[in-house]
Amino acid sequence: MVRKTQLKQILKLKQKKHRLANGLFVAEGEKTVREFISASWPCKILFSLENNFHPQAQKVDLSVMNQITHFKNPSPVLGVFEIPKPKLLNKMPITIAVDGIRDPGNLGAIIRLCDWFGIDDLICSFNTVDCFNSKTVHASMGSLVRVTCHYLENLSEHLKSLEKPVFGADYRGKSIYSVRLPEFGSYIFGSESHGFSQEINNLLDYKLSIPNYRQTKGAESLNVATATAIFLSEIYRKT
Amino acid sequence: MVRKTQLKQILKLKQKKHRLANGLFVAEGEKTVREFISASWPCKILFSLENNFHPQAQKVDLSVMNQITHFKNPSPVLGVFEIPKPKLLNKMPITIAVDGIRDPGNLGAIIRLCDWFGIDDLICSFNTVDCFNSKTVHASMGSLVRVTCHYLENLSEHLKSLEKPVFGADYRGKSIYSVRLPEFGSYIFGSESHGFSQEINNLLDYKLSIPNYRQTKGAESLNVATATAIFLSEIYRKT
Repeated sequence: MVRKTQLKQILKLKQKKHRLANGLFVAEGEKTVREFISASWPCKILFSLENNFHPQAQKVDLSVMNQITHFKNPSPVLGVFEIPKPKLLNKMPITIAVDGIRDPGNLGAIIRLCDWFGIDDLICSFNTVDCFNSKTVHASMGSLVRVTCHYLENLSEHLKSLEKPVFGADYRGKSIYSVRLPEFGSYIFGSESHGFSQEINNLLDYKLSIPNYRQTKGAESLNVATATAIFLSEIYRKT
Repeated sequence: MVRKTQLKQILKLKQKKHRLANGLFVAEGEKTVREFISASWPCKILFSLENNFHPQAQKVDLSVMNQITHFKNPSPVLGVFEIPKPKLLNKMPITIAVDGIRDPGNLGAIIRLCDWFGIDDLICSFNTVDCFNSKTVHASMGSLVRVTCHYLENLSEHLKSLEKPVFGADYRGKSIYSVRLPEFGSYIFGSESHGFSQEINNLLDYKLSIPNYRQTKGAESLNVATATAIFLSEIYRKT
Protein backbone atom coordinates (compact mmCIF):
# COMPACT_ATOMS: atom_id res chain seq x y z
CA MET A 1 0.00 0.00 0.00
CA VAL A 2 1.15 3.48 -0.83
CA ARG A 3 0.12 6.10 1.70
CA LYS A 4 -1.54 9.26 0.46
CA THR A 5 0.73 11.40 2.61
CA GLN A 6 3.71 9.89 0.80
CA LEU A 7 2.27 10.80 -2.60
CA LYS A 8 1.58 14.33 -1.42
CA GLN A 9 5.11 14.64 -0.04
CA ILE A 10 6.62 13.55 -3.35
CA LEU A 11 4.56 16.09 -5.28
CA LYS A 12 5.53 18.86 -2.87
CA LEU A 13 9.21 18.22 -3.64
CA LYS A 14 8.63 19.91 -6.99
CA GLN A 15 9.11 23.14 -5.07
CA LYS A 16 12.49 24.27 -3.83
CA LYS A 17 11.15 25.42 -0.45
CA HIS A 18 9.87 21.92 0.29
CA ARG A 19 13.12 20.33 -0.91
CA LEU A 20 15.05 22.62 1.45
CA ALA A 21 12.66 22.12 4.36
CA ASN A 22 12.80 18.32 4.05
CA GLY A 23 16.34 17.92 2.73
CA LEU A 24 14.99 15.66 0.01
CA PHE A 25 14.78 15.57 -3.79
CA VAL A 26 13.14 13.39 -6.43
CA ALA A 27 14.95 11.44 -9.15
CA GLU A 28 13.06 9.78 -11.99
CA GLY A 29 14.28 7.35 -14.63
CA GLU A 30 16.09 4.04 -14.28
CA LYS A 31 19.57 5.23 -15.17
CA THR A 32 19.45 8.31 -12.97
CA VAL A 33 18.03 6.48 -9.94
CA ARG A 34 20.60 3.69 -10.31
CA GLU A 35 23.43 6.24 -10.23
CA PHE A 36 22.28 7.62 -6.86
CA ILE A 37 21.77 4.14 -5.43
CA SER A 38 25.19 2.95 -6.65
CA ALA A 39 26.79 5.99 -5.05
CA SER A 40 25.01 5.10 -1.76
CA TRP A 41 23.01 8.31 -1.52
CA PRO A 42 20.46 7.66 1.24
CA CYS A 43 17.17 6.72 -0.40
CA LYS A 44 13.93 7.43 1.48
CA ILE A 45 11.37 6.16 -1.01
CA LEU A 46 11.85 3.94 -4.04
CA PHE A 47 8.97 3.08 -6.37
CA SER A 48 9.17 0.88 -9.43
CA LEU A 49 6.69 -0.42 -11.99
CA GLU A 50 8.67 -3.67 -12.18
CA ASN A 51 9.30 -6.31 -9.54
CA ASN A 52 13.03 -6.69 -9.92
CA PHE A 53 14.44 -3.22 -10.07
CA HIS A 54 15.98 -3.22 -6.60
CA PRO A 55 15.42 -5.11 -3.30
CA GLN A 56 14.45 -1.85 -1.59
CA ALA A 57 11.93 -0.86 -4.29
CA GLN A 58 8.21 -1.00 -3.72
CA LYS A 59 6.21 -2.09 -6.77
CA VAL A 60 3.51 0.39 -7.71
CA ASP A 61 0.98 0.72 -10.52
CA LEU A 62 1.23 3.11 -13.41
CA SER A 63 -1.69 5.01 -11.89
CA VAL A 64 0.47 5.82 -8.86
CA MET A 65 3.41 6.90 -11.02
CA ASN A 66 1.04 9.10 -13.00
CA GLN A 67 0.02 10.84 -9.79
CA ILE A 68 3.52 11.53 -8.48
CA THR A 69 5.66 12.19 -11.53
CA HIS A 70 7.18 15.67 -11.79
CA PHE A 71 7.02 15.34 -15.58
CA LYS A 72 4.39 15.05 -18.25
CA ASN A 73 5.01 11.33 -18.53
CA PRO A 74 5.99 9.05 -15.66
CA SER A 75 9.19 6.99 -15.57
CA PRO A 76 9.31 3.29 -14.63
CA VAL A 77 11.31 4.21 -11.51
CA LEU A 78 11.11 7.09 -9.03
CA GLY A 79 13.28 7.62 -5.98
CA VAL A 80 13.32 10.17 -3.16
CA PHE A 81 16.85 10.84 -1.94
CA GLU A 82 18.45 12.89 0.78
CA ILE A 83 20.16 16.09 -0.33
CA PRO A 84 23.80 15.64 0.77
CA LYS A 85 25.49 17.96 3.25
CA PRO A 86 27.50 20.79 1.67
CA LYS A 87 30.97 19.69 0.63
CA LEU A 88 34.18 21.68 0.80
CA LEU A 89 35.24 23.28 -2.44
CA ASN A 90 38.40 21.73 -3.88
CA LYS A 91 41.19 23.96 -5.15
CA MET A 92 41.55 23.03 -8.80
CA PRO A 93 43.41 24.69 -11.68
CA ILE A 94 40.16 25.15 -13.61
CA THR A 95 37.05 26.69 -12.11
CA ILE A 96 33.75 26.53 -13.97
CA ALA A 97 31.04 28.92 -12.84
CA VAL A 98 27.53 29.74 -14.01
CA ASP A 99 25.80 33.07 -13.43
CA GLY A 100 22.01 33.25 -13.37
CA ILE A 101 21.14 30.09 -15.34
CA ARG A 102 17.37 29.76 -15.05
CA ASP A 103 16.60 26.80 -17.29
CA PRO A 104 16.86 23.55 -15.27
CA GLY A 105 17.58 21.46 -18.39
CA ASN A 106 20.53 23.67 -19.30
CA LEU A 107 21.98 23.42 -15.80
CA GLY A 108 21.58 19.64 -15.94
CA ALA A 109 23.37 19.46 -19.30
CA ILE A 110 26.21 21.61 -17.90
CA ILE A 111 26.56 19.33 -14.84
CA ARG A 112 26.78 16.34 -17.19
CA LEU A 113 29.43 18.15 -19.25
CA CYS A 114 31.47 18.87 -16.10
CA ASP A 115 31.26 15.18 -15.25
CA TRP A 116 32.45 14.22 -18.75
CA PHE A 117 35.44 16.56 -18.60
CA GLY A 118 36.40 15.46 -15.09
CA ILE A 119 35.38 18.64 -13.28
CA ASP A 120 34.19 17.86 -9.74
CA ASP A 121 32.86 21.26 -8.71
CA LEU A 122 30.50 23.67 -10.40
CA ILE A 123 30.18 27.16 -8.92
CA CYS A 124 26.68 28.62 -9.20
CA SER A 125 25.48 32.14 -8.51
CA PHE A 126 22.67 32.33 -5.96
CA ASN A 127 20.12 33.15 -8.67
CA THR A 128 20.94 29.99 -10.63
CA VAL A 129 18.22 27.33 -10.67
CA ASP A 130 18.46 24.68 -7.92
CA CYS A 131 20.49 21.64 -8.97
CA PHE A 132 17.99 19.39 -7.16
CA ASN A 133 15.11 20.66 -9.32
CA SER A 134 13.67 17.45 -10.83
CA LYS A 135 14.34 18.62 -14.37
CA THR A 136 17.97 19.37 -13.54
CA VAL A 137 18.34 16.00 -11.84
CA HIS A 138 16.85 14.36 -14.93
CA ALA A 139 18.99 16.27 -17.45
CA SER A 140 22.18 15.62 -15.48
CA MET A 141 21.50 11.88 -15.70
CA GLY A 142 23.06 11.02 -12.36
CA SER A 143 26.19 13.15 -12.85
CA LEU A 144 25.29 14.91 -9.58
CA VAL A 145 26.92 12.01 -7.74
CA ARG A 146 30.29 13.15 -9.12
CA VAL A 147 29.79 16.88 -9.63
CA THR A 148 29.00 19.11 -6.64
CA CYS A 149 27.17 22.38 -7.22
CA HIS A 150 28.28 25.10 -4.83
CA TYR A 151 25.83 28.02 -4.57
CA LEU A 152 27.68 31.17 -3.58
CA GLU A 153 26.04 34.36 -2.45
CA ASN A 154 28.90 36.43 -3.75
CA LEU A 155 30.20 34.79 -6.90
CA SER A 156 32.43 37.69 -7.92
CA GLU A 157 34.13 37.89 -4.50
CA HIS A 158 34.86 34.19 -4.65
CA LEU A 159 36.30 34.38 -8.16
CA LYS A 160 38.46 37.34 -7.12
CA SER A 161 39.80 35.41 -4.14
CA LEU A 162 41.01 32.59 -6.41
CA GLU A 163 43.55 34.93 -8.04
CA LYS A 164 43.22 33.26 -11.41
CA PRO A 165 42.48 34.84 -14.80
CA VAL A 166 38.73 35.07 -15.38
CA PHE A 167 37.26 34.22 -18.79
CA GLY A 168 33.67 34.96 -19.74
CA ALA A 169 31.65 33.66 -22.68
CA ASP A 170 30.45 36.84 -24.42
CA TYR A 171 29.37 37.25 -28.03
CA ARG A 172 31.34 40.50 -28.30
CA GLY A 173 34.55 38.77 -27.23
CA LYS A 174 37.58 37.53 -29.16
CA SER A 175 37.18 34.20 -30.99
CA ILE A 176 37.91 31.22 -28.72
CA TYR A 177 39.74 29.68 -31.67
CA SER A 178 42.24 32.55 -31.75
CA VAL A 179 43.71 31.75 -28.33
CA ARG A 180 44.86 28.69 -26.44
CA LEU A 181 42.45 28.42 -23.52
CA PRO A 182 44.59 27.88 -20.43
CA GLU A 183 44.02 25.08 -17.95
CA PHE A 184 44.59 27.58 -15.14
CA GLY A 185 41.68 29.97 -14.93
CA SER A 186 38.05 30.56 -14.11
CA TYR A 187 35.47 30.28 -16.88
CA ILE A 188 32.04 31.82 -16.43
CA PHE A 189 28.87 31.21 -18.40
CA GLY A 190 25.91 33.54 -18.05
CA SER A 191 22.23 33.53 -18.84
CA GLU A 192 21.55 33.87 -22.57
CA SER A 193 18.84 36.43 -22.17
CA HIS A 194 20.29 38.57 -19.39
CA GLY A 195 24.03 38.13 -19.87
CA PHE A 196 26.33 38.60 -16.90
CA SER A 197 25.54 40.62 -13.83
CA GLN A 198 27.42 43.95 -13.69
CA GLU A 199 29.70 42.69 -10.92
CA ILE A 200 30.78 39.69 -12.97
CA ASN A 201 31.21 41.84 -16.05
CA ASN A 202 33.63 44.09 -14.17
CA LEU A 203 35.63 41.08 -13.08
CA LEU A 204 36.28 39.54 -16.50
CA ASP A 205 39.88 39.58 -17.66
CA TYR A 206 38.99 38.16 -21.08
CA LYS A 207 35.76 37.97 -23.07
CA LEU A 208 35.67 35.12 -25.52
CA SER A 209 33.11 34.17 -28.14
CA ILE A 210 32.25 31.29 -30.42
CA PRO A 211 32.32 32.92 -33.85
CA ASN A 212 29.06 33.03 -35.77
CA TYR A 213 29.58 31.47 -39.18
CA ARG A 214 26.59 33.06 -40.87
CA GLN A 215 27.51 35.99 -43.13
CA THR A 216 24.16 37.74 -42.82
CA LYS A 217 22.01 38.01 -39.72
CA GLY A 218 21.58 34.66 -38.01
CA ALA A 219 20.99 33.31 -34.50
CA GLU A 220 21.75 35.93 -31.85
CA SER A 221 23.21 33.53 -29.36
CA LEU A 222 23.77 29.88 -28.60
CA ASN A 223 22.04 27.90 -25.89
CA VAL A 224 24.27 28.22 -22.79
CA ALA A 225 24.76 24.44 -22.47
CA THR A 226 25.97 24.06 -26.07
CA ALA A 227 28.24 27.11 -25.64
CA THR A 228 29.69 25.59 -22.46
CA ALA A 229 30.26 22.33 -24.36
CA ILE A 230 32.35 24.12 -26.99
CA PHE A 231 34.37 26.01 -24.36
CA LEU A 232 35.13 22.85 -22.36
CA SER A 233 36.13 21.03 -25.53
CA GLU A 234 38.50 23.87 -26.42
CA ILE A 235 40.08 23.86 -22.95
CA TYR A 236 40.66 20.13 -22.89
CA ARG A 237 41.36 19.21 -26.51
CA LYS A 238 45.13 19.56 -25.97
CA THR A 239 46.26 19.65 -29.58
CA MET B 1 -13.05 39.18 -27.95
CA VAL B 2 -11.26 35.88 -28.22
CA ARG B 3 -13.41 33.07 -29.58
CA LYS B 4 -13.48 29.79 -27.69
CA THR B 5 -12.94 27.84 -30.90
CA GLN B 6 -9.70 29.75 -31.41
CA LEU B 7 -8.45 28.82 -27.95
CA LYS B 8 -9.35 25.19 -28.55
CA GLN B 9 -7.57 25.21 -31.90
CA ILE B 10 -4.39 26.60 -30.35
CA LEU B 11 -4.38 23.94 -27.66
CA LYS B 12 -4.94 21.19 -30.22
CA LEU B 13 -1.77 22.27 -32.03
CA LYS B 14 0.19 20.67 -29.20
CA GLN B 15 -0.35 17.44 -31.10
CA LYS B 16 1.48 16.63 -34.32
CA LYS B 17 -1.60 15.21 -36.01
CA HIS B 18 -3.44 18.51 -35.57
CA ARG B 19 -0.42 20.50 -36.74
CA LEU B 20 -0.28 18.36 -39.88
CA ALA B 21 -4.03 18.46 -40.50
CA ASN B 22 -4.14 22.26 -40.19
CA GLY B 23 -0.68 23.10 -41.49
CA LEU B 24 -0.15 25.31 -38.47
CA PHE B 25 2.18 25.53 -35.47
CA VAL B 26 2.47 27.63 -32.33
CA ALA B 27 5.39 29.87 -31.39
CA GLU B 28 5.66 31.44 -27.93
CA GLY B 29 8.02 34.10 -26.64
CA GLU B 30 8.79 37.56 -27.96
CA LYS B 31 12.10 36.83 -29.62
CA THR B 32 10.89 33.66 -31.33
CA VAL B 33 7.65 35.18 -32.61
CA ARG B 34 9.50 38.25 -33.89
CA GLU B 35 11.82 36.03 -35.92
CA PHE B 36 8.91 34.39 -37.75
CA ILE B 37 7.20 37.74 -38.36
CA SER B 38 10.42 39.35 -39.63
CA ALA B 39 10.90 36.43 -42.03
CA SER B 40 7.31 36.99 -43.28
CA TRP B 41 6.02 33.57 -42.27
CA PRO B 42 2.22 33.80 -42.66
CA CYS B 43 0.76 34.45 -39.22
CA LYS B 44 -2.81 33.29 -38.53
CA ILE B 45 -3.23 34.38 -34.92
CA LEU B 46 -1.12 36.77 -32.87
CA PHE B 47 -1.83 37.39 -29.19
CA SER B 48 0.10 39.74 -26.92
CA LEU B 49 -0.22 40.86 -23.31
CA GLU B 50 1.00 44.32 -24.31
CA ASN B 51 -0.57 46.88 -26.64
CA ASN B 52 2.42 47.71 -28.77
CA PHE B 53 3.95 44.41 -29.71
CA HIS B 54 2.85 44.44 -33.36
CA PRO B 55 0.06 46.12 -35.38
CA GLN B 56 -1.43 42.71 -36.18
CA ALA B 57 -1.43 41.56 -32.55
CA GLN B 58 -4.59 41.26 -30.51
CA LYS B 59 -4.20 42.25 -26.87
CA VAL B 60 -5.32 39.51 -24.47
CA ASP B 61 -5.32 39.02 -20.73
CA LEU B 62 -2.96 36.79 -18.80
CA SER B 63 -5.93 34.51 -18.11
CA VAL B 64 -6.23 33.83 -21.86
CA MET B 65 -2.50 33.17 -22.20
CA ASN B 66 -2.70 30.81 -19.24
CA GLN B 67 -5.38 28.83 -21.06
CA ILE B 68 -3.55 28.48 -24.37
CA THR B 69 0.12 28.20 -23.51
CA HIS B 70 1.82 24.92 -24.45
CA PHE B 71 4.15 25.38 -21.49
CA LYS B 72 3.92 25.49 -17.74
CA ASN B 73 4.15 29.26 -17.78
CA PRO B 74 2.73 31.53 -20.48
CA SER B 75 4.82 33.93 -22.57
CA PRO B 76 3.89 37.57 -23.19
CA VAL B 77 3.42 36.75 -26.89
CA LEU B 78 1.96 33.76 -28.75
CA GLY B 79 1.62 33.35 -32.51
CA VAL B 80 0.08 30.71 -34.75
CA PHE B 81 1.98 30.39 -38.02
CA GLU B 82 1.62 28.40 -41.21
CA ILE B 83 3.99 25.47 -41.63
CA PRO B 84 5.92 26.28 -44.83
CA LYS B 85 5.81 24.04 -47.91
CA PRO B 86 8.67 21.53 -48.16
CA LYS B 87 11.82 23.05 -49.61
CA LEU B 88 14.31 21.41 -51.93
CA LEU B 89 17.41 20.06 -50.25
CA ASN B 90 20.54 22.02 -51.20
CA LYS B 91 23.72 20.17 -52.16
CA MET B 92 26.26 21.28 -49.61
CA PRO B 93 29.74 19.98 -48.74
CA ILE B 94 28.64 19.24 -45.17
CA THR B 95 25.51 17.30 -44.33
CA ILE B 96 24.26 17.18 -40.74
CA ALA B 97 21.76 14.44 -39.91
CA VAL B 98 20.00 13.29 -36.76
CA ASP B 99 18.72 9.77 -36.18
CA GLY B 100 15.85 9.19 -33.76
CA ILE B 101 16.15 12.30 -31.57
CA ARG B 102 13.09 12.19 -29.30
CA ASP B 103 13.68 15.15 -27.00
CA PRO B 104 12.19 18.31 -28.53
CA GLY B 105 14.54 20.59 -26.58
CA ASN B 106 17.58 18.78 -27.92
CA LEU B 107 16.34 19.03 -31.49
CA GLY B 108 15.71 22.75 -30.97
CA ALA B 109 19.23 23.28 -29.61
CA ILE B 110 20.67 21.40 -32.63
CA ILE B 111 18.66 23.58 -35.06
CA ARG B 112 20.04 26.66 -33.30
CA LEU B 113 23.57 25.25 -33.58
CA CYS B 114 23.10 24.62 -37.31
CA ASP B 115 21.98 28.23 -37.66
CA TRP B 116 25.05 29.46 -35.78
CA PHE B 117 27.44 27.47 -37.94
CA GLY B 118 25.73 28.53 -41.17
CA ILE B 119 24.13 25.17 -41.99
CA ASP B 120 20.83 25.66 -43.84
CA ASP B 121 19.53 22.08 -43.90
CA LEU B 122 19.17 19.49 -41.17
CA ILE B 123 18.34 15.95 -42.22
CA CYS B 124 16.08 14.11 -39.77
CA SER B 125 15.12 10.46 -39.65
CA PHE B 126 11.38 9.86 -39.72
CA ASN B 127 11.35 8.87 -36.04
CA THR B 128 12.90 12.18 -34.98
CA VAL B 129 10.60 14.52 -33.06
CA ASP B 130 8.66 17.05 -35.18
CA CYS B 131 10.53 20.35 -35.59
CA PHE B 132 7.23 22.23 -35.20
CA ASN B 133 6.64 20.75 -31.75
CA SER B 134 6.20 23.83 -29.54
CA LYS B 135 9.16 22.89 -27.34
CA THR B 136 11.40 22.52 -30.39
CA VAL B 137 10.20 25.84 -31.77
CA HIS B 138 10.93 27.42 -28.40
CA ALA B 139 14.39 25.88 -27.99
CA SER B 140 15.41 26.80 -31.54
CA MET B 141 14.62 30.45 -30.77
CA GLY B 142 13.50 31.32 -34.27
CA SER B 143 16.39 29.58 -36.05
CA LEU B 144 13.77 27.59 -37.99
CA VAL B 145 13.46 30.58 -40.33
CA ARG B 146 17.00 29.88 -41.56
CA VAL B 147 17.37 26.13 -40.99
CA THR B 148 15.06 23.71 -42.82
CA CYS B 149 14.45 20.28 -41.31
CA HIS B 150 14.01 17.59 -43.96
CA TYR B 151 12.34 14.42 -42.67
CA LEU B 152 13.41 11.45 -44.76
CA GLU B 153 11.80 8.05 -44.65
CA ASN B 154 15.01 6.36 -45.64
CA LEU B 155 17.88 8.27 -44.06
CA SER B 156 20.53 5.68 -44.88
CA GLU B 157 19.57 5.53 -48.58
CA HIS B 158 19.81 9.28 -48.79
CA LEU B 159 23.20 9.41 -47.12
CA LYS B 160 24.47 6.67 -49.44
CA SER B 161 23.29 8.61 -52.47
CA LEU B 162 25.37 11.65 -51.44
CA GLU B 163 28.60 9.66 -52.00
CA LYS B 164 30.38 11.44 -49.18
CA PRO B 165 32.24 9.93 -46.21
CA VAL B 166 29.85 9.29 -43.32
CA PHE B 167 30.91 10.13 -39.74
CA GLY B 168 28.93 9.03 -36.71
CA ALA B 169 29.21 10.22 -33.11
CA ASP B 170 29.82 7.01 -31.15
CA TYR B 171 31.45 6.64 -27.74
CA ARG B 172 33.44 3.63 -28.98
CA GLY B 173 34.95 5.66 -31.82
CA LYS B 174 38.33 7.34 -32.29
CA SER B 175 38.87 10.67 -30.52
CA ILE B 176 37.59 13.61 -32.57
CA TYR B 177 40.71 15.48 -31.49
CA SER B 178 42.96 12.91 -33.19
CA VAL B 179 41.72 13.72 -36.70
CA ARG B 180 40.99 16.82 -38.75
CA LEU B 181 37.23 16.67 -39.35
CA PRO B 182 36.74 17.32 -43.07
CA GLU B 183 34.35 19.93 -44.43
CA PHE B 184 33.22 17.39 -47.03
CA GLY B 185 31.19 14.69 -45.38
CA SER B 186 28.01 13.65 -43.63
CA TYR B 187 27.88 13.76 -39.84
CA ILE B 188 25.20 11.84 -37.98
CA PHE B 189 24.06 12.17 -34.39
CA GLY B 190 21.88 9.50 -32.81
CA SER B 191 19.65 9.15 -29.80
CA GLU B 192 21.63 8.90 -26.57
CA SER B 193 19.63 6.05 -25.17
CA HIS B 194 19.12 3.97 -28.31
CA GLY B 195 22.20 4.84 -30.39
CA PHE B 196 22.01 4.50 -34.16
CA SER B 197 19.61 2.27 -36.04
CA GLN B 198 21.29 -0.84 -37.50
CA GLU B 199 21.05 0.56 -41.02
CA ILE B 200 22.87 3.73 -40.08
CA ASN B 201 25.45 1.77 -38.14
CA ASN B 202 26.26 -0.27 -41.24
CA LEU B 203 26.70 2.90 -43.24
CA LEU B 204 29.26 4.64 -41.04
CA ASP B 205 32.72 5.05 -42.53
CA TYR B 206 34.15 6.51 -39.33
CA LYS B 207 33.03 6.42 -35.70
CA LEU B 208 34.24 9.36 -33.68
CA SER B 209 33.96 10.13 -29.98
CA ILE B 210 34.50 12.98 -27.58
CA PRO B 211 36.99 11.52 -25.12
CA ASN B 212 35.83 11.13 -21.54
CA TYR B 213 38.30 12.89 -19.25
CA ARG B 214 37.35 11.05 -16.08
CA GLN B 215 39.85 8.33 -15.12
CA THR B 216 37.35 6.21 -13.23
CA LYS B 217 33.74 5.57 -14.16
CA GLY B 218 31.93 8.78 -15.02
CA ALA B 219 29.01 9.89 -17.21
CA GLU B 220 28.13 7.27 -19.80
CA SER B 221 27.30 9.72 -22.54
CA LEU B 222 26.82 13.37 -23.33
CA ASN B 223 23.53 15.02 -24.15
CA VAL B 224 23.19 14.81 -27.95
CA ALA B 225 22.93 18.61 -28.36
CA THR B 226 26.14 19.27 -26.43
CA ALA B 227 27.90 16.47 -28.37
CA THR B 228 26.71 18.01 -31.65
CA ALA B 229 28.02 21.40 -30.47
CA ILE B 230 31.51 19.97 -29.92
CA PHE B 231 31.50 18.21 -33.32
CA LEU B 232 30.40 21.34 -35.18
CA SER B 233 33.02 23.40 -33.38
CA GLU B 234 35.70 20.87 -34.38
CA ILE B 235 34.59 20.91 -38.04
CA TYR B 236 34.56 24.69 -38.30
CA ARG B 237 37.35 25.86 -36.00
CA LYS B 238 39.85 25.91 -38.90
CA THR B 239 43.07 26.05 -36.95
